[in-house]
Amino acid sequence: MSAIAGPRALSAAVIAVGTELVADGRQDTNGATIGLMLASIGYETATRTCVADDEELIAFALEEAARRVSLVIVTGGLGPTVDDVTREAAARAFDAPLQQDNLLLEDLRLRYQRRGMKFSEWSARQAMVPRGAEPIPNQAGTAPGLLFIRPNGTLVALLPGVPHEMERMMTEQLLPRLRDLAAAAGGDGGGGLVTRGLKTTGLNEIEVQTRVLDLFDAGHEGGTTLTLLASPGEVSVIVRGRNAAAVESTWTQARARLGEHVFADDAFTGLESAVARVRPRESSRSPTAESCTGGLLGSLITKVPGSSRWYLQGWITYSNESKVASLGIDRQLLELHGAVSEQVATAMAEAARQRSGADIAVSITGIAGPEGGTQNKPVGLVYLATATEASTRVTRHLFPGDRQNIRLFSARAALGRVRAEI
Amino acid sequence: MSAIAGPRALSAAVIAVGTELVADGRQDTNGATIGLMLASIGYETATRTCVADDEELIAFALEEAARRVSLVIVTGGLGPTVDDVTREAAARAFDAPLQQDNLLLEDLRLRYQRRGMKFSEWSARQAMVPRGAEPIPNQAGTAPGLLFIRPNGTLVALLPGVPHEMERMMTEQLLPRLRDLAAAAGGDGGGGLVTRGLKTTGLNEIEVQTRVLDLFDAGHEGGTTLTLLASPGEVSVIVRGRNAAAVESTWTQARARLGEHVFADDAFTGLESAVARVRPRESSRSPTAESCTGGLLGSLITKVPGSSRWYLQGWITYSNESKVASLGIDRQLLELHGAVSEQVATAMAEAARQRSGADIAVSITGIAGPEGGTQNKPVGLVYLATATEASTRVTRHLFPGDRQNIRLFSARAALGRVRAEI
Repeated sequence: MSAIAGPRALSAAVIAVGTELVADGRQDTNGATIGLMLASIGYETATRTCVADDEELIAFALEEAARRVSLVIVTGGLGPTVDDVTREAAARAFDAPLQQDNLLLEDLRLRYQRRGMKFSEWSARQAMVPRGAEPIPNQAGTAPGLLFIRPNGTLVALLPGVPHEMERMMTEQLLPRLRDLAAAAGGDGGGGLVTRGLKTTGLNEIEVQTRVLDLFDAGHEGGTTLTLLASPGEVSVIVRGRNAAAVESTWTQARARLGEHVFADDAFTGLESAVARVRPRESSRSPTAESCTGGLLGSLITKVPGSSRWYLQGWITYSNESKVASLGIDRQLLELHGAVSEQVATAMAEAARQRSGADIAVSITGIAGPEGGTQNKPVGLVYLATATEASTRVTRHLFPGDRQNIRLFSARAALGRVRAEI
Repeated sequence: MSAIAGPRALSAAVIAVGTELVADGRQDTNGATIGLMLASIGYETATRTCVADDEELIAFALEEAARRVSLVIVTGGLGPTVDDVTREAAARAFDAPLQQDNLLLEDLRLRYQRRGMKFSEWSARQAMVPRGAEPIPNQAGTAPGLLFIRPNGTLVALLPGVPHEMERMMTEQLLPRLRDLAAAAGGDGGGGLVTRGLKTTGLNEIEVQTRVLDLFDAGHEGGTTLTLLASPGEVSVIVRGRNAAAVESTWTQARARLGEHVFADDAFTGLESAVARVRPRESSRSPTAESCTGGLLGSLITKVPGSSRWYLQGWITYSNESKVASLGIDRQLLELHGAVSEQVATAMAEAARQRSGADIAVSITGIAGPEGGTQNKPVGLVYLATATEASTRVTRHLFPGDRQNIRLFSARAALGRVRAEI
């Protein structure tokens, strides 16, 4: 492969140190926070890496990142215990032997004393500084950070892994400095990175892409990029670039093309929250009758506070027997058309509406799999119905994926319908 | 710094591709799952990396990881859209030009057809295979995976980013193969890392720790480590070390101390799956009556296929009115004690049992917040009841965390009760 020339300007690598982050299924939250912080001042994060507490691996990751990007931020492994080896790894990667910093040592002793903590030779390790590195004071804890400026100009900051200590050091000390550097690097009007997002429902990823395809190409010319993110029942569009006017224009066009399918003007709001934010007409009440989703729709609706204004109740009628007993569905209808049918979806929605005295009821019946599919009624076949006093509307869907996906697609599609109706 | 000789044996790098994972504060969950899976078969994950959707950066990360470790697993960027460039990056990193695989193309066309999705030239990109790579079938989605065996023996697997597709491909196809390789590498007693896990419900993290505290110290001496991981309603214990007998002994002791609270003998199985695996007595039927969880319990129960053997129906009675109308709860009881009370929990469970003619019914009523808490009934207060013909048992809980946590704790605790009863 082609070699990468020098470090990319305004490009960052974020490294989190900790064996629990690679082996035990724990999530590194610091990297996510730092990625957002850096984006806000115009840095693009190229990679986020979690590395085990292993001096050789950390040294390798550090040395390697410092060649590629102009900013490396490392969190964790600066504490006093035996598995904290980030300091040693940096000394090794940058060929900068550790030296005791006596001012730092005195300061540490005082801090331990003030906190009533015992100061040991282990604690004293936190006063060791690699040659040429600058200590970064830690107002919220004991382990100071360390800042390196590499010969190629790349900045490498080592910060503690405790989130509130890291956040305070980033906000108070590193970000102001980095902002100045970014402004200098961006030069005349280059500006920082601007991001705008939106979220859609009722279209799949390919359908969204088809509607905005030419914006991908148009954007690329102006240095604006479009990203699509799909999750069951939702597709997000993220527009990103250094030219704020170009980003805004691309975003506005994308939004117009996606029309009524857009439910949020950012890439974070879930469909559940968007629905919860809708202020329904005073009288609107919307009960649910669920078969294959088994309560998932009710669960999504009530996930967000405030839904109690318009969501009062639901029926989970998983078996045929319960459809008859709880909702009064005609047994003959079930025998004639099967539980997964237009007719039963319709009857479920109408019964839920009548029994609750509500304006609009929504029902879901389908085959979530993996068993139970047939030639005529395959796994993924789902009927959704909405019943109002005037009429009942039923739609047929064939959702892709496995049981989880089919259930989530079904519930989100029903939620999209509820959103449109209330 | 010192050069790293060859790839480390039984050492893995996990890479997740997606700009949203580095810049938008989104979390990569796949890497966490894969880290746990690999640990269970003796691989040590050295690094987890998230890389933006950028061909050059992905290629660099791939090429670099393939030199260091003996296993590289990459998720994401294999889909059909323009920002999916993992396939191209691998072709570039490994100097393996993309070639169309006609069998794969035919298979893809059929998959799209079966799902009623339109097949376009974009979709056809998923049938391009880098020279020398082996396609990994994807039973749960459309994008096939790709497997490379590098000249130094390192395995590089590219998998889709959709969690359930990745999980299925890992479990059914890669893990069996890797387990054999690991066993071969472990060889004559030299031993790889051995991991054993178990999962508990009904105890919090501190309660679990108290029961196994001395095993932490005993283990350390033998090089065995214990890790506790808590999520709402579940605490996992992971025992890890190079001495298989010591790991087994520590694990067996931990399991004995945690007794009936253990619901899985690994660290992956969700409580939902554990409950689904229980074969209930022939006659067991277990309906649900939910208030603050709004269908979440029903949704967890029906998440796993097979629950229809014993789960037939549920009532979501979110409002007081619906508790009266659907379950026939006495209006005076609600006025006297409030909806969140021992009495109403009891009445809900008993009504659900009587109305369904079932053996055991479970109910949940509580205050999930953020609003609605008082001095006497704070946010987090939840009553769970189980009613059988003989008696009704009700318990009072004060769950920590936010709305989501409280709902999940409540549903999982109820699920644990269902598991104990059926």
